Amino acid sequence: MKRTLGVCYYPEHWLETQWADDAARMIEAGLTWVRIGEFAWQRIEPSRGQFAWDWLDRAVQTLGAAGLKIIMGTPTATPPRWLVDEMPDMLPVDTDGRVRKFGSRRHYDFSHQGYRTECRRIAGAMGERYGKNPHIAAWQIDNEYDCHDTTLSYSEAARAGFQDWCAQRYQSTDALNRAWGNVFWSMDYDRFDQIELPNLTVTEPNPAHVLAFRRYASDQVVAFNRIQADVLRKYTDAPLVHNYMGRITTFDHWAVGADLDIASWDSYPIGFLSDRIEGTPAEKQRFLRQGHPDNQAFHHDLYRAVGKGRMWVMEQQPGPVNWAPYNPAPLPGMARLWAWEAFAHGAETVCYFRWRQAPFAQEQMHAGLLRPDSADAPALAEARQVATELLDLPDVEAAASPVALIFDYESAWAWDTQPQGADFDMFRLAFAAYRALRRAGLSIDILPPDVSDLGGYKLVLAPGLMRLSDPVRAALSTFEGTALIGPRTDTKTDELSIPTPMGPNLPDVDITAALTESIPPTDEIALQDGGRFLHWFEHLEGKAEVFRRTQAGFPAIMGNVHLRYLGGWPDDETFDQIIRALCDEAGITTHDLPDGLRVRDTGTHRFVFNYAPEPLTWRGATIPPAGVHWEPLG
Amino acid sequence: MKRTLGVCYYPEHWLETQWADDAARMIEAGLTWVRIGEFAWQRIEPSRGQFAWDWLDRAVQTLGAAGLKIIMGTPTATPPRWLVDEMPDMLPVDTDGRVRKFGSRRHYDFSHQGYRTECRRIAGAMGERYGKNPHIAAWQIDNEYDCHDTTLSYSEAARAGFQDWCAQRYQSTDALNRAWGNVFWSMDYDRFDQIELPNLTVTEPNPAHVLAFRRYASDQVVAFNRIQADVLRKYTDAPLVHNYMGRITTFDHWAVGADLDIASWDSYPIGFLSDRIEGTPAEKQRFLRQGHPDNQAFHHDLYRAVGKGRMWVMEQQPGPVNWAPYNPAPLPGMARLWAWEAFAHGAETVCYFRWRQAPFAQEQMHAGLLRPDSADAPALAEARQVATELLDLPDVEAAASPVALIFDYESAWAWDTQPQGADFDMFRLAFAAYRALRRAGLSIDILPPDVSDLGGYKLVLAPGLMRLSDPVRAALSTFEGTALIGPRTDTKTDELSIPTPMGPNLPDVDITAALTESIPPTDEIALQDGGRFLHWFEHLEGKAEVFRRTQAGFPAIMGNVHLRYLGGWPDDETFDQIIRALCDEAGITTHDLPDGLRVRDTGTHRFVFNYAPEPLTWRGATIPPAGVHWEPLG
Amino acid sequence: MKRTLGVCYYPEHWLETQWADDAARMIEAGLTWVRIGEFAWQRIEPSRGQFAWDWLDRAVQTLGAAGLKIIMGTPTATPPRWLVDEMPDMLPVDTDGRVRKFGSRRHYDFSHQGYRTECRRIAGAMGERYGKNPHIAAWQIDNEYDCHDTTLSYSEAARAGFQDWCAQRYQSTDALNRAWGNVFWSMDYDRFDQIELPNLTVTEPNPAHVLAFRRYASDQVVAFNRIQADVLRKYTDAPLVHNYMGRITTFDHWAVGADLDIASWDSYPIGFLSDRIEGTPAEKQRFLRQGHPDNQAFHHDLYRAVGKGRMWVMEQQPGPVNWAPYNPAPLPGMARLWAWEAFAHGAETVCYFRWRQAPFAQEQMHAGLLRPDSADAPALAEARQVATELLDLPDVEAAASPVALIFDYESAWAWDTQPQGADFDMFRLAFAAYRALRRAGLSIDILPPDVSDLGGYKLVLAPGLMRLSDPVRAALSTFEGTALIGPRTDTKTDELSIPTPMGPNLPDVDITAALTESIPPTDEIALQDGGRFLHWFEHLEGKAEVFRRTQAGFPAIMGNVHLRYLGGWPDDETFDQIIRALCDEAGITTHDLPDGLRVRDTGTHRFVFNYAPEPLTWRGATIPPAGVHWEPLG
Repeated sequence: MKRTLGVCYYPEHWLETQWADDAARMIEAGLTWVRIGEFAWQRIEPSRGQFAWDWLDRAVQTLGAAGLKIIMGTPTATPPRWLVDEMPDMLPVDTDGRVRKFGSRRHYDFSHQGYRTECRRIAGAMGERYGKNPHIAAWQIDNEYDCHDTTLSYSEAARAGFQDWCAQRYQSTDALNRAWGNVFWSMDYDRFDQIELPNLTVTEPNPAHVLAFRRYASDQVVAFNRIQADVLRKYTDAPLVHNYMGRITTFDHWAVGADLDIASWDSYPIGFLSDRIEGTPAEKQRFLRQGHPDNQAFHHDLYRAVGKGRMWVMEQQPGPVNWAPYNPAPLPGMARLWAWEAFAHGAETVCYFRWRQAPFAQEQMHAGLLRPDSADAPALAEARQVATELLDLPDVEAAASPVALIFDYESAWAWDTQPQGADFDMFRLAFAAYRALRRAGLSIDILPPDVSDLGGYKLVLAPGLMRLSDPVRAALSTFEGTALIGPRTDTKTDELSIPTPMGPNLPDVDITAALTESIPPTDEIALQDGGRFLHWFEHLEGKAEVFRRTQAGFPAIMGNVHLRYLGGWPDDETFDQIIRALCDEAGITTHDLPDGLRVRDTGTHRFVFNYAPEPLTWRGATIPPAGVHWEPLG
Repeated sequence: MKRTLGVCYYPEHWLETQWADDAARMIEAGLTWVRIGEFAWQRIEPSRGQFAWDWLDRAVQTLGAAGLKIIMGTPTATPPRWLVDEMPDMLPVDTDGRVRKFGSRRHYDFSHQGYRTECRRIAGAMGERYGKNPHIAAWQIDNEYDCHDTTLSYSEAARAGFQDWCAQRYQSTDALNRAWGNVFWSMDYDRFDQIELPNLTVTEPNPAHVLAFRRYASDQVVAFNRIQADVLRKYTDAPLVHNYMGRITTFDHWAVGADLDIASWDSYPIGFLSDRIEGTPAEKQRFLRQGHPDNQAFHHDLYRAVGKGRMWVMEQQPGPVNWAPYNPAPLPGMARLWAWEAFAHGAETVCYFRWRQAPFAQEQMHAGLLRPDSADAPALAEARQVATELLDLPDVEAAASPVALIFDYESAWAWDTQPQGADFDMFRLAFAAYRALRRAGLSIDILPPDVSDLGGYKLVLAPGLMRLSDPVRAALSTFEGTALIGPRTDTKTDELSIPTPMGPNLPDVDITAALTESIPPTDEIALQDGGRFLHWFEHLEGKAEVFRRTQAGFPAIMGNVHLRYLGGWPDDETFDQIIRALCDEAGITTHDLPDGLRVRDTGTHRFVFNYAPEPLTWRGATIPPAGVHWEPLG
Repeated sequence: MKRTLGVCYYPEHWLETQWADDAARMIEAGLTWVRIGEFAWQRIEPSRGQFAWDWLDRAVQTLGAAGLKIIMGTPTATPPRWLVDEMPDMLPVDTDGRVRKFGSRRHYDFSHQGYRTECRRIAGAMGERYGKNPHIAAWQIDNEYDCHDTTLSYSEAARAGFQDWCAQRYQSTDALNRAWGNVFWSMDYDRFDQIELPNLTVTEPNPAHVLAFRRYASDQVVAFNRIQADVLRKYTDAPLVHNYMGRITTFDHWAVGADLDIASWDSYPIGFLSDRIEGTPAEKQRFLRQGHPDNQAFHHDLYRAVGKGRMWVMEQQPGPVNWAPYNPAPLPGMARLWAWEAFAHGAETVCYFRWRQAPFAQEQMHAGLLRPDSADAPALAEARQVATELLDLPDVEAAASPVALIFDYESAWAWDTQPQGADFDMFRLAFAAYRALRRAGLSIDILPPDVSDLGGYKLVLAPGLMRLSDPVRAALSTFEGTALIGPRTDTKTDELSIPTPMGPNLPDVDITAALTESIPPTDEIALQDGGRFLHWFEHLEGKAEVFRRTQAGFPAIMGNVHLRYLGGWPDDETFDQIIRALCDEAGITTHDLPDGLRVRDTGTHRFVFNYAPEPLTWRGATIPPAGVHWEPLG
């Protein structure tokens, strides 16, 4: 497949007289795609039922005529003021019970049935008008679900919806009371309408109550998305996409992805480094203008799986953004590197955000490919270089990876609800494991928690899954590679309680996590032969073989030849030791990479990326900062 | 008196078929007491007036028949949902004005008259049914007053109650205006119903207003407790107990204790260390799995006094808990050490919390004596060891201590209200003084602020009392030992204003705290001959003798042979110097203890506890980590 | 002009029998002025329309008869309870939507029309009674506008007022939508009554919306003040004053000042150092008991300009205060130094706050010139010394300064709204520039953003002005000295968007700030020849001369001989280099001052102040800590 570039564009922000020139410059820069439409509801429908299609028709025509393929966005992330006036209870409510007001974006409650109807209406109207338009080659539904913490809302609509959801799931309050353990602290309910949302309780609410609400909230995102997907499919055969974000775990992306054709995501490496990725101050300074060297890769791999093999970057950072605490400029070359890394991980398309820096409103300090005065911004030349390079390179195809990591959103909710240690976080744990794999030079697949076929892999990791699904359990029982699971894996029931027998309840491996400790940052659990656990440690018992012990003699890794359970959270160095030893066992080649260098193998090529601020040499090739190197695989 | 062990148990959490086996295992482990009933309101009265006594009758019978003595708890900390539905305004309101919802525990307002009536009703019903039951040997009222910051509520019920309380205390708004100094900033009131609760004011409210509200709130806890005590006494002669918490100063424990027979408290040494006790990171790491070596002792001594000599530990941490930011496991042996330390400080009974780790709801990660799967948890063997050791040891009786410390809750409210320095806290100051006494190897009594007899003591400390009560003032005027009072002692009126003459107004000692400085953490006041004040420094004037000076020449300690006023807050080393010098003067023997070793003398024995993570040797005996050593007093 | 001292006094706090003695002691101490009346509304008008003038008449008579000149304060910062009962919607509402309750002070909303009417009524009544009284020599309106963050209120009154303000400013929603760029995120409005206040939005509101609200809020302060000024001028010819605070940028002091005769401010050097001034821990420790050596000077210079040449210190810290996180005592001598520094900067009068420490209510721990028991507090002797010294010194007159700094409140609102970097703050930037000037020994004028005449200056700084006003632009085009503007100067339109052409748009100098970076604290932009930018860096382009470059070769300072644009935020050392080099160019003499020494030249004298805690020697004179040295200018 030929990989392509694109850009996000808001024709309604600019004089119509500029459109044709903008389109010509996009084509000149080698761009293939342009995304429009998202956020334009008010301009499309200035008042109820009065549609102003004309400008959008002309924008589509102008861009299409220039040779661009259009991604049309539904504008449901920005309901117009008149709609909010009609149904003010559509506004979301924050955890403190405060209404979140109109005046920015995402001011809607996923639970609100009236707003869902409106979204079906506007998406349907757009589908009807543009569904068969030859220039429209893809559709984006809404924009960045959960952005600004909007998955969870504590509104009346959410309360009513949650009570109904509970009634459907549990059928009787008696069943619910038993499932949640409401006998504890006399929390039993007699009627479903007594069940409130789990905010503002005197102390922490029942974790089963919270987990149920988290499931409910995720289900609403899925349902909200499905409504638009369903209506659009009536009118179009173009692929449907949503642009996910990074490090968002509040809804089940696997479930949303099931209703779409492509998973795209919005990649802002520098903004992320500063406030969404754990790291030492030294790391954050080293990669300040490049982003974390594993963060983009992780999300590419995750969304490639969520998209069932089809993955895009819908928004790619081109320069300084406006929303992080500090917003430095990328190192020259990073706008090229990030695009190539996406392609090497299977991205079909990378769209820069945005074409021209908007001179007004919230994002006026967010760089684009053009400056507000239409002069070239630095990233435009880098985009043009990528476009040129794409012409020369044979098609990049994804390769089968030897290693995989299972990632589960429900577990993230469970551990949010009951972290037990203040620094326990599902994404952090999974990302720690993923980073160790990357530092070993491996190319990785990420898998859903109900994966049933592990056949192609030599090494599978499953850190922090609250429980193993039946398909995974079955797959593990016949797995011929090595699985490394834990810590905290398979230690809870579906209702976030402790099972009897206590977990993990593994096929053919007798291990019990008898006692759990969370470890403050000042402490560690030292292992024999070097290494240490941080954050978390489980006292493992059972008849399974002990592969590694703590200095105090407790088991640290137990299991059998195919299935190992990790009883703690290794620090980076220890994770490296463990992964490399398992790879040696499994016959997987690992690499010693200089700090900041990363490798990704496709079906035909090896790509090498230098995230460091200095040149790095590996296997005879010296790669400059922000440099990309590729060579055919031998 | 024979010291005993016990355990907390929730029969309603388990199959009835398990009860007899549980009871037998308790007896086998050497336990004497079992606490039940607290939190079970919904199971006792599933709907209004429909009592389900049968299961509780059988639980009492099963446990009693096995030979256990039962502590029956009133379940008023967990009103059931149907009751909240009947009177939703019984819910407490937080300082931001948000209703604190049903869904956990302690969801009631102490001021709500309707809820008080309900508590009288349910406690009366339980008293009527079990008051004469031979297996019920004690009653616990409610659970952990103020847990989750529930003493202060900003509800309508509290507002109405506070206005009435003000009317009763001051009789006229004119008197109130004068008492509070409302002329300042035109805050005068014309009617009592104009007086709002002191939250959400534009800037800090009048401190006299706040102190009045703190007094009111404490009075409500006392009244709430008294209602249940009064109704239970109609039906039973068994002792009445409440289980207090650690470092809670929001209500007057002396006043609550006056209505009860025994003061018990809930001791969680490791959870406390992490987030309720000041300490350097090095100290917190050193005692991470043991708890602070003085925290348990302080509360034992405090509650022995609150209980007028009768003190229990109602809940003793047995392993990792679930509620601290990080929850490591205790060092092996600590579950034994903590029990013995309690006994050495006069505890009659130590009950571990809880029997079996609950697999569901909020506390599912809180260890018990059994694991959720009923296997022995580590603490069970330690409890059994204590039970065996108790059989061999002669009865431990409390001894007269040579030193005492006066502790006053009102002063804590006063300094909360008007700290003047961001790190001034009454408990912190009192605990700093107490720790210095403990480091000197002393056994200490804690006394109420209205104590009238200091006759038995050689050294009395009274740090931070906003004013000296008339009895203390009288006692000091004839005291033949040495009293060390201050800083900040006797510097305010009863209405939290500055008296004229300015304080301290001491018998026969002319000292005035003319000017007060709070000192940021970066600064200190250096003393002559070494030592320093941190946090706080008062410029002392007057004709009294100067015992110590700052390097700048200001008085640091003034007074006479019997009464010394301390003009600042000594750091630990300086407090050690001061205490040891006073002990030398007073003829009190002090000890040089290795870091982490602590001593407690009873009437017959000297107990030595090793809180350090390494073995310590003292006077020829080497005590392992978590070790307890005792020997008869010479 | 003869400089004078004064004091703040609250006769209503004290027995009437003390007044005469107090007045005599004031005179004895050399005080000229006494401020009374502020906060006394309830005592003046205990219930609606029932005025109790008698006590105030007697106070005025007693003080006046003793020879004191009276500043009469209007009591509108403390509306009495009965007034709040009449119009409860006059209370302000915080950003979270919570009503800010009665119980302290400043509990009013500037937008509330009913309260404005009440203020006109009470100020008018006071003016009518005392406007011609010979003892009343000045009037203070209200007290400390914005204290406790009261400029911004999110009440219904504010919402209605803001909608009307928008309608008047923009005339049509269409114009408003265009001005704000509401096309972004579909934020367009159809009617003015749809426009809500910009709090509690889902994510940040449109910055143009916020800036409009900030302008609106500032306008309300101006209007509120003008109402009282207008009514007082009917009755009195005495000068009208307001007492501003330090580092308050929420309203336009230039605009408030335009309606008054004198600008006074309340100077609390030690309280400010701890929590309102950036500084390293070492600096904060070094100046702990003295205050920041440039903070007082900055505000003296600022308010001298706001007062059109007439500046007072209305409240001067005399000892420890009660409101900072920590409240140490000033170094002996500072109460004198601060007064002299004010005089050297042109203050006509310095009033200490307060006469006698109040023993009750919120400020009971705030020192005065007397202790609560009426004994002399340490500052009284220092005040007396200043009074004596004033007798000997020839009149101090302000001199023309060679350098000036333009300070703009609107820019502060703009950068609050859109900081782009978490540590960007307008005051901080301006103060950094001012401090560099002060370290060079310069005396400085501060100028408003619409200044049209720069003729007298050799060096003018304009850091961080969102746009250059037309007068400044005109003045710069003919300026014969050197202007150093930037960073971030003239980079926005009046509606906080990016202009085309992009700024700065300077007369005869071609520079474009093409790209902006905010820099985290861990990073810096190194300059050639040493030095560095922190916090902020702009990529400058254009044909103007490059005066300095970064190590990476980017321009750091561009411009021409008269106008330089600074592309980043220099650290202190670099600012020193830049300022000294410009002064050398401009022929301005600079000084090398020891750390903590500061100089201020008046028309006749050079004053030298030692803020350091140790003696400092400069030009042969050794000045003790807290010492003041003056000598006639040569």
